[in-house]
Formats: sequence, structure tokens, C-alpha cells
Amino acid sequence: MHVLIIGAAGMVGRKLATRLAAEATLGGRAITALTLLDIVPPEKPAAFPGTIETRAADLSLPGEAARAIAARPDIIFHLAAIVSGEAEADFEKGYRVNLDGTRALFEAVRLEGREKPYRPRMVFTSSIAVFGAPFPEAIDDEFLTAPLTSYGTEKAIGELLLCDYTRRGFMDGIAIRLPTISIRPGKPNKAASGFFSSILREPLAGQEAVLPVSEDVRHWHASPRSAVGFLIHAATIDLAPLGARRALSMPGLSATVGEQIAALRRVAGEAAVKRIRREPDPAIAKIVEGWPRNFSPGRAAALGFVAEKSFDEIIRVHIEDELGGKLG
Amino acid sequence: MHVLIIGAAGMVGRKLATRLAAEATLGGRAITALTLLDIVPPEKPAAFPGTIETRAADLSLPGEAARAIAARPDIIFHLAAIVSGEAEADFEKGYRVNLDGTRALFEAVRLEGREKPYRPRMVFTSSIAVFGAPFPEAIDDEFLTAPLTSYGTEKAIGELLLCDYTRRGFMDGIAIRLPTISIRPGKPNKAASGFFSSILREPLAGQEAVLPVSEDVRHWHASPRSAVGFLIHAATIDLAPLGARRALSMPGLSATVGEQIAALRRVAGEAAVKRIRREPDPAIAKIVEGWPRNFSPGRAAALGFVAEKSFDEIIRVHIEDELGGKLG
Repeated sequence: MHVLIIGAAGMVGRKLATRLAAEATLGGRAITALTLLDIVPPEKPAAFPGTIETRAADLSLPGEAARAIAARPDIIFHLAAIVSGEAEADFEKGYRVNLDGTRALFEAVRLEGREKPYRPRMVFTSSIAVFGAPFPEAIDDEFLTAPLTSYGTEKAIGELLLCDYTRRGFMDGIAIRLPTISIRPGKPNKAASGFFSSILREPLAGQEAVLPVSEDVRHWHASPRSAVGFLIHAATIDLAPLGARRALSMPGLSATVGEQIAALRRVAGEAAVKRIRREPDPAIAKIVEGWPRNFSPGRAAALGFVAEKSFDEIIRVHIEDELGGKLG
Repeated sequence: MHVLIIGAAGMVGRKLATRLAAEATLGGRAITALTLLDIVPPEKPAAFPGTIETRAADLSLPGEAARAIAARPDIIFHLAAIVSGEAEADFEKGYRVNLDGTRALFEAVRLEGREKPYRPRMVFTSSIAVFGAPFPEAIDDEFLTAPLTSYGTEKAIGELLLCDYTRRGFMDGIAIRLPTISIRPGKPNKAASGFFSSILREPLAGQEAVLPVSEDVRHWHASPRSAVGFLIHAATIDLAPLGARRALSMPGLSATVGEQIAALRRVAGEAAVKRIRREPDPAIAKIVEGWPRNFSPGRAAALGFVAEKSFDEIIRVHIEDELGGKLG
């Protein structure tokens, strides 16, 4: 089986590539070839027994999408995207990469199948940014996609295209809406959502972190390990039960900042909690106000998608996967 | 004020152009210039006191959208589309006209505003085809858009783009989802929905009509006159109360085929009803099963959009507007 990962140099893409390379199977079938694409050449994971290719490609450029799928991969993970902040700051770039790039990929698959049947599994990472306030208490599987960012708009359009291309028989697609990924490994960044991870990650590493919002802010989380789990599950299950509605909100954990901090206290003690400095930032508080707080993702649960049930668990996943199992 | 109608040669576009030309005002302001575009040159309505231009244009061709809006119309009605059946039969043409054409128009408006501010009112005709079964008892304003046709997908994408372009300040947009237009004037056509109109239109004109489904089939209707009324209302009201959600299901009448026939009996007598021949067609019955039956369009109602309250009224509108006020 040939697996293609587009966006393999990103945080989730790297973890997915590493896991697939190490396991060399997917849904009980051997992975014989693995192709990793991104706008920069992705790292080659160690220890993959099959053929591996890593390559830089920009799907929004003419011919690149057709080249990307010319070897007819059986499974395509499409994770490539300009992130929310950049898509908002650079309107044209966001639409070019997130909309035109995605559409070019789907079109390439459709055109590839014209002469000889080709209908790959397409796993597209969407986002809870397809939803915009005002929200119900918990967002269910029938709530409208009314995004409040260009990024969310581009993802919502990708979902619609994926559903139509699937309904027409051009591919076997599923769009999975990832929760906010916590704890995101790496350095603190300037994303408005950065504090959800940094208030845990920095203290766990013995460093200071800044909390810009109040402790009663509620948000929707899943670990990087869960995100990779969603992708693999989406690639392997029978999608027929979904019918024509192929965009799914993934399970996650609805937690307040206060609950995050309480979990940090239980796992790492009061000394870690003391490293969080409160510095209210009304601008960040206002942005976060428009974000989803809770979901009831019944369809995903029925299909067997699972996420963490507590922030203690999310913190332990971080310690295992990023800190070698030990607190710093 | 300069008004541009794109899709001015279609059934609703012609009626809109005729009414605007005759009234020569819109929302209390004089219309000094009227531009009518379509893929074929639209007819020039009589009796317009201002400057009128009619022209053939295909917005999906390079440069055409920029040319269409170069004179900076204050109000743009975008009604142009490949219809549902053709968009399903010709995948590439549907996406080219309905998606690329619409996006090209929005992009042209955005680019036109870069050097000197330009933010026209954009009234985009969407459709209840953005919704797909399974449905709730009545589709409310928060129900997801999960279309089951390429046409519905293209319209749903148009709505998302319109909302994002409006949110970013590039235009002042509203997308109105038209109910099925009944009674559609003209000859019977092969559209699966054709019988909803022809079972009334043909008998009213003394001719036979075929009913391919059972009398308990329920559907969502508004007259051509109401459709024009929605467009004019959408062009003139303050849209700020809508916030970022600029796509609205229009009001209509939920009626069964049996209720349509009972209204025909009341307005035109038993002789007219006798001209309906029952010829069950399982293929049409199956298509119609996936269509919306009822809505609760609370937001549109709150903004003052109105439609007919009975099929008697819809039939009388047809007699007044199409039959010179007299039964044939």
C-alpha cells in the first residue's frame, strides 16, 4: 500500500509520518511506499522498511497536484494549510494555499481517475474554525458552519468539495475537524491560542508562562497523539455509514483554564503552577470569546474516534511523548 | 444609482429587470443607470428613463468580471447560474460557471476597491439546494448546509465566500436562498421539479398536465413575484443586524401536492383539476424525497421578507402576472 502525506513537515504531519514509518502498517495492511510532501522538504523518518520519498511541493502551482498523486497513492492525508493567523493577515495567500491547493488536489484525483478507475481514501484535516459564534451550549453534528475567519471559510469550502467529490465517486473522502491541539510541543508562539499549551508546557519544563485570560475560559482540546490517532482511524474505517456527510467534528475534552491548571497541580505540583504569571490581555480575551467551547460529536464517537477524558491524561501524554516520560 | 443585474436573461432576472426599469427607483433612490448582463444578451426593458446597457458576458472567463463591475455599480444582483440538472450532468461546466464565475465576481469587486474604496451591495441568489436530507421537521436558521448535488455545493460555497468577503469589508453581501419558484411561467421542462408548476400552469391554460408523485409530497414554494420582492428587499434593507451570517433562507409556503390541487379547485374549478393525469414515476419520486419540505426562516421574517400564505394566492399571482388577470 502506498501512503501520501501532504503537509508532512508540520507538527501533526511529522508525528503521523514517524508513526506510520515505524509501524509500516495501516489498518492491517503493509505500507510498502511512503511519500512525504510539504512546502519545504520533510524530514525522512528513520527505520521505514519500504520505499520512502520526501519532496517539496506547492499544490497551488500548476501541475504540482497532478505530480503529487501520479503514483496513485491508496491513501492521501491532506494536512497542508496556511494557519489561521497568516490566512487572516494575507488574504490572497490563504485562499491560494488553503482553497486553491486543496481544490487542485481533489481535481488531480478526479482527472487521474478518468482513464483508469482511481478512488483513493482522502483524509482531510479540517478545523473547529469552520464554526463561528454565537454557539449553542455544545455544538452538535447538525450545527451550521458559519466561520468567522478566512481560514475557517477555506476549511469549510474544502469540506463541501470533499463531500461532493466523494458523492460523485471521485474519491472516498473524510474531513476531520481537529480540536485545538494541547499540549502543542515546541517554543511558545504568537498564536492567540498559544497560552492553552504554554501554561502547561513551560511550567512542566521548569519555565515561566503567561496566562492572558481568566480561569473560567472554556475551550476544546485533544493531544497531538489523539490527532494522529484520528487520522489513522479515519484512513482505515469503513466510511459508508457516514453517507454523504463526510465532515466530522472529532471528539475532545471541554475544559476551562482553571481545570487545566488543577490538572497541572495534580500531575506536577504547586511549584509548577506557581510558574504561571497572570497578565490579562483584553485583545486575546476578545478573540478567544468567539471560539467554540464544547461539542457533542456523536457521529465521530459512534465511529470509534476517541480522545482524552481528562487534562491529567493530556499532560501525561505530553510527558511521555515529548519529555521522555520524565518531568524536567 | 447604478444597478447591475448578472443573469438578467433568466426567468427571475427578466422580471427583476422589468420591474426596476419600470419603477426606476430602488429603496427610495432613483436608478440612473441599469446594466443587464447574461451569457446571452438580455432583452432591453421598455420605458426606462435612465441609461441602459445590455451585454453578453461569461464571468468565468479572464477579465470579464472586472469589466462587468468596472463602472462601479452601487448594487449588484448576481443571479447567473447553471441550473441543478445541468450542473449535475456536466461537472466541469457547473463548477466553472457557478463557483469560478461567482468567485471571479467577488474577486473583481475586492480588487476594484484596492486603490479607491468600493463596497457595493451584493445580492446573491442561493437556493434551498444547499440543504440535503435527512432534514428536521422544519429547517431552521442554524441547520447545516450538507448539499446532495453539485449545484447545491456550488451555491453553499458561494455563500461562504460572500460571508467572508463581507466580513473582510470588500462588499456588503447577502445571499438569499430561494424556495422552488411556483408557478414558473413558460413551457413544461424536464426538471424533476417541473410538475410542481405544471400541474397548475397547464390546467389553468386549459391543457393537460402529468403528476408523477403522490399527493402527500410536501415542498417549499414562493411565486416569481415574491422572488423579485425578496431581491429588491435584500438590496435595500440595512444588513448590519445579520452580523457575519449573511446567508438567509427566504420565507415560503410549505404545501403538499394535494393542497396545491385543492387550491386549483377553489380558484379554477373541478374542470381544471380533471386535466391532471396521474402517472407515477418512481425515479422522480425518489429525487423529490431528498428535497426540503418545510422551513422556519425566522431571521428572514424578522427582517421583513414576505411570501405568499396560501396556494390560492400563488395561483392568483400567476393569473395576474402571466395570464393578464383572466383564466384561459
